[in-house]
Amino acid sequence: MNGLSDPAYIARIDSQKLRLRLQDFPAQCEKAWKMGLRISLPVDYRNVERIVVLGMGGSAIAGDLLSDFLHRVDGPSIEVFRDYGLPGNLNENTLIIASSYSGNTDETLSGFREALRQSCKVIAITSGGIMGEEAKRAQIPLFQIDYTGEPRSALGFSLMLPLAILNQLHLIEDINPDILKTTHFLNSLIQKEIGLKVPSSSNHAKQLATDLQGRFPIFYAGDYFRGVARRWKTQFNENSKVWSYWEAIPEVHHNAVMGYQMPDAIKKLATIVLLRPRFLTPKMRLRYSITEELLSSYAVDYRIIDGRGETILAEILATTLLGDYTSFYLAILQGVNPVTTDAIDFIKSTWQERNPSS
Amino acid sequence: MNGLSDPAYIARIDSQKLRLRLQDFPAQCEKAWKMGLRISLPVDYRNVERIVVLGMGGSAIAGDLLSDFLHRVDGPSIEVFRDYGLPGNLNENTLIIASSYSGNTDETLSGFREALRQSCKVIAITSGGIMGEEAKRAQIPLFQIDYTGEPRSALGFSLMLPLAILNQLHLIEDINPDILKTTHFLNSLIQKEIGLKVPSSSNHAKQLATDLQGRFPIFYAGDYFRGVARRWKTQFNENSKVWSYWEAIPEVHHNAVMGYQMPDAIKKLATIVLLRPRFLTPKMRLRYSITEELLSSYAVDYRIIDGRGETILAEILATTLLGDYTSFYLAILQGVNPVTTDAIDFIKSTWQERNPSS
Repeated sequence: MNGLSDPAYIARIDSQKLRLRLQDFPAQCEKAWKMGLRISLPVDYRNVERIVVLGMGGSAIAGDLLSDFLHRVDGPSIEVFRDYGLPGNLNENTLIIASSYSGNTDETLSGFREALRQSCKVIAITSGGIMGEEAKRAQIPLFQIDYTGEPRSALGFSLMLPLAILNQLHLIEDINPDILKTTHFLNSLIQKEIGLKVPSSSNHAKQLATDLQGRFPIFYAGDYFRGVARRWKTQFNENSKVWSYWEAIPEVHHNAVMGYQMPDAIKKLATIVLLRPRFLTPKMRLRYSITEELLSSYAVDYRIIDGRGETILAEILATTLLGDYTSFYLAILQGVNPVTTDAIDFIKSTWQERNPSS
Repeated sequence: MNGLSDPAYIARIDSQKLRLRLQDFPAQCEKAWKMGLRISLPVDYRNVERIVVLGMGGSAIAGDLLSDFLHRVDGPSIEVFRDYGLPGNLNENTLIIASSYSGNTDETLSGFREALRQSCKVIAITSGGIMGEEAKRAQIPLFQIDYTGEPRSALGFSLMLPLAILNQLHLIEDINPDILKTTHFLNSLIQKEIGLKVPSSSNHAKQLATDLQGRFPIFYAGDYFRGVARRWKTQFNENSKVWSYWEAIPEVHHNAVMGYQMPDAIKKLATIVLLRPRFLTPKMRLRYSITEELLSSYAVDYRIIDGRGETILAEILATTLLGDYTSFYLAILQGVNPVTTDAIDFIKSTWQERNPSS
């Protein structure tokens, strides 16, 4: 028995009701998907040779998830650009998906404007802000997110909108028939396995959060769970207010594994969470096994989370949602409001005051 | 006075003489550059629309450094691919630079073979191994690294060879006139500032290593120092045998800054090392300042390392070298052999035994 079984306690800590946005994630995905299919795109947007997602934080993570998914289903490759400006070698056959929930993200805005100047094909995904205004003025396709919440909770929009766009442009095999099944699956996960009403005794997310209390969580994943691992890391930073990192498998085998020895205090605090997709090649499966053996032999605490779902996309979304819930429960256990982001607010207000013009 | 001023102690701990390879880095860069300019490439290699570096560990880091440099000098954009296989959408105008010091890196080999099948333009960079054999058989350009040492010490080759190739293909402005000046600068850094003979009282690398003893180092960098930060992280893993991570600025402002609060034990152990390039835009300079203010306000220990050197490339190489030396000195201070990588050796031998065929 801990705070996770007390609705009144949860309501007090989660005073801004992140729990409702978590629960709404499947519906948001569905809404975003339908919206993405409806909007008409200029005909020449079909001639695309390169796709770049511009975004920071949660918007960029959506690009990672998209990239992992498309790589696995032999779709087009997607670059995610998290910085000011744009990558090099762009041309009129480059599709730039500029994604900023607020529409005011300084880094993304700079690349968005540059992309318009360079005559790339640009699509804006935003709830409004400066990017919303400028997209209207430039008469480029604008996907207006109709949503109120923290940027990281708009993941359904920032992921499913571009995916629907690619589906519409026939750049991937039509996945429309799978979407409803996927969101039903996510809803049943919430209702029966990881949601607030499911007691700790049978709730994997609550159990994992309890295990991670006071720990230093580091997420490892390979193949189509790389972006998921990064999402877990950032959700643990923002929701739970804890230090957290992630590593990609197999890259982790080439350097990070040598660091398990010192300082001993870090080793004692670290819990490695291995996020393991269902559909791995034998080689990648062996990479995961070797990772386990190494962690055991160095006496580093670890857990394995196996992917669930019938399709690659379902698995990516379900495992993302599990991380969102787990980081939420960890915040509750620690008695911290999962919504507030005072350090990020400090950055934004300082930026407002001192933002240099160039 | 500590072990760093005792040559006999250093020689005992560093029994495999990494110190000589560190000292040789400028000469290696020069040798690799000259070699890269000499080798003749097929004429059609000039028609390149996309460049992908395949590599893991140190070879991949070289790709990151290259990518940072080229981005900053408006050169072509480079993707670094650290996994099995290849990214999507490749064609005959894609240049694949497959880089594996041993020539036997399983992940890189898989992509290398696939690239040959897909008729990409392929270049192999290796000391031999399977990739060396197969490159000869396929009659593709092969840059044979004539070097004995740990893969991470072959950075001069894995960075300067592809750079020379791009220079040869006129994909960047000719930097040949700068190279000698740069390697002279690196040599003088070693002789006068960070090398073994320079006493701790005036040796920045020795001082920083002393500061980082028993600490949990995390490297932050933006712009053309991102790859450098990643190099520091991996060198601290491999040489010093410590847990270490890195974050990119400004992405760090969107999530990681929220994690400074818990667990308190991590906060007390962490030292953030801000690697700051000389040539920053006012916006990026402000991002660095805000990062400092945040770290101060959360009472997180931090240091700033300012870039040195007259050109972007000189600064990247000099700051990389500073990290290499600092991680070496930290190993010595901790009494661990900087060369041995038992966990990586375990992975390789396990792999030999159990490597699945697909």
